[in-house]
Amino acid sequence: MRILVIGATGLVGGAAADALEAYGDEVLRASRSSALAVDLTDAASITALFERVASVDAVVSAVGSVPFKPLAELTGEDYLSAYRGKVAAQVDVVRIGTAHVTDGGSLTLTTGILAREPIRTGAAAALANGALESFVISAAAELPRGLRVNAVSPTVLTEATGYHAFFPGFPPVSAADVGQAFVRSVHGVQTGQVFAL
Amino acid sequence: MRILVIGATGLVGGAAADALEAYGDEVLRASRSSALAVDLTDAASITALFERVASVDAVVSAVGSVPFKPLAELTGEDYLSAYRGKVAAQVDVVRIGTAHVTDGGSLTLTTGILAREPIRTGAAAALANGALESFVISAAAELPRGLRVNAVSPTVLTEATGYHAFFPGFPPVSAADVGQAFVRSVHGVQTGQVFAL
Ligand SMILES: NC(=O)c1ccc[n+]([C@@H]2O[C@H](COP(=O)([O-])OP(=O)(O)OC[C@H]3O[C@@H](n4cnc5c(N)ncnc54)[C@H](OP(=O)(O)O)[C@@H]3O)[C@@H](O)[C@H]2O)c1
Ligand SMILES: NC(=O)c1ccc[n+]([C@@H]2O[C@H](COP(=O)([O-])OP(=O)(O)OC[C@H]3O[C@@H](n4cnc5c(N)ncnc54)[C@H](OP(=O)(O)O)[C@@H]3O)[C@@H](O)[C@H]2O)c1
Repeated sequence: MRILVIGATGLVGGAAADALEAYGDEVLRASRSSALAVDLTDAASITALFERVASVDAVVSAVGSVPFKPLAELTGEDYLSAYRGKVAAQVDVVRIGTAHVTDGGSLTLTTGILAREPIRTGAAAALANGALESFVISAAAELPRGLRVNAVSPTVLTEATGYHAFFPGFPPVSAADVGQAFVRSVHGVQTGQVFAL
Repeated sequence: MRILVIGATGLVGGAAADALEAYGDEVLRASRSSALAVDLTDAASITALFERVASVDAVVSAVGSVPFKPLAELTGEDYLSAYRGKVAAQVDVVRIGTAHVTDGGSLTLTTGILAREPIRTGAAAALANGALESFVISAAAELPRGLRVNAVSPTVLTEATGYHAFFPGFPPVSAADVGQAFVRSVHGVQTGQVFAL
């Protein structure tokens, strides 16, 4: 398959791209700083990316900036930035990308464990993850041409050591295992699913 | 208890207010068109409402405007309006209202079944509900002074006949039963819970 991975220079997106390549796929790696450049906070930039790649069999998005602050310090602007930086960014991948995915293809987004488990400073991230997971459940039911959409929702990654202090006693998951969840979403048959790991 | 119900002229908020009054509470009924006026899409208006009521033992919010359209017709502006009209509106009730709730009191938001089950035209509503449900899980863990926060997440109401065609075979729930879920959230001990019914 020919697969567009957005956020491919990152930890999660890199793991997805590597796992899909190891599985035998042709992977197009995109991000703001990649040769295949895109900024998911700018719908025109997403449109330009999809015009450039024309058609792919699957799209993976592993992008999402959200503020981490104590609940009492999170402002209206912080929640809005979580919405724009993670929710709208990835909804727009589905909204704009759908027409560029071949029949029976898929779109896979990235959410995270904060959709279902709390940590200190995680309320805006939780909001973003929960929004995307419920969106995926609904969008799956209305996609045309046998297209599928799922979310990969990992706990903290083993390699993301900077975050470990915020996840006391949460068993981390390896980037390699997270990569396999994307392989499962792309090459499997499930849709409207949240792959929690 | 002295309880502020926002959206009290509506079906869900009215059911909550009636159930709490029947339980013996003093209920302050607010909405845009009420004497106790508030517009949840305007943070300054929420601040003014809470200054007016000064202090309450619990807050119930049963407000939320979201666009219903086929997935292929939902625009970026539509998702943003669901975010503003339901998510930010109710997050701001928690954000601004917390300081006005007495020690050990509670805040209860309203989400809905689309967080977990798809219907046609429901993707923006789903996004809003999922955002709030995950927010509640996280915010509960960081509220001060023994405060609690929950969400009531009903399926379609028996009385909401205009929506029944979008929920084929979904058993509706009565407004009276939904009202009891708010009584349970306000007078019970649970926090960070989604009361699905
Ligand atoms: N790391 C974890 O433990 C973990 C656990 C659960 C969930 N997640 C989620 O996984 C997602 C990715 O996290 P990560 O740890 O892989 O982050 P990361 O290492 O910082 O990677 C982020 C990737 O996204 C790209 N990017 C950032 N903003 C972008 C934008 N506006 N448009 C296009 N590309 C953009 C970055 O490349 P450029 O800078 O070149 O744009 C990079 O490729 C996030 O949603 C995060 O919440 C991470
Ligand atoms: N009806 C159902 O079957 C059902 C099922 C599941 C979930 N829900 C959810 O329950 C919530 C309420 O639904 P409903 O059916 O009760 O709606 P509704 O009958 O239209 O009532 C909405 C209430 O909110 C108030 N309101 C609207 N916009 C407001 C704003 N910006 N600021 C302050 N108050 C505002 C309205 O009064 P004013 O016009 O005076 O402001 C009214 O009191 C929604 O989030 C909905 O998604 C409903």
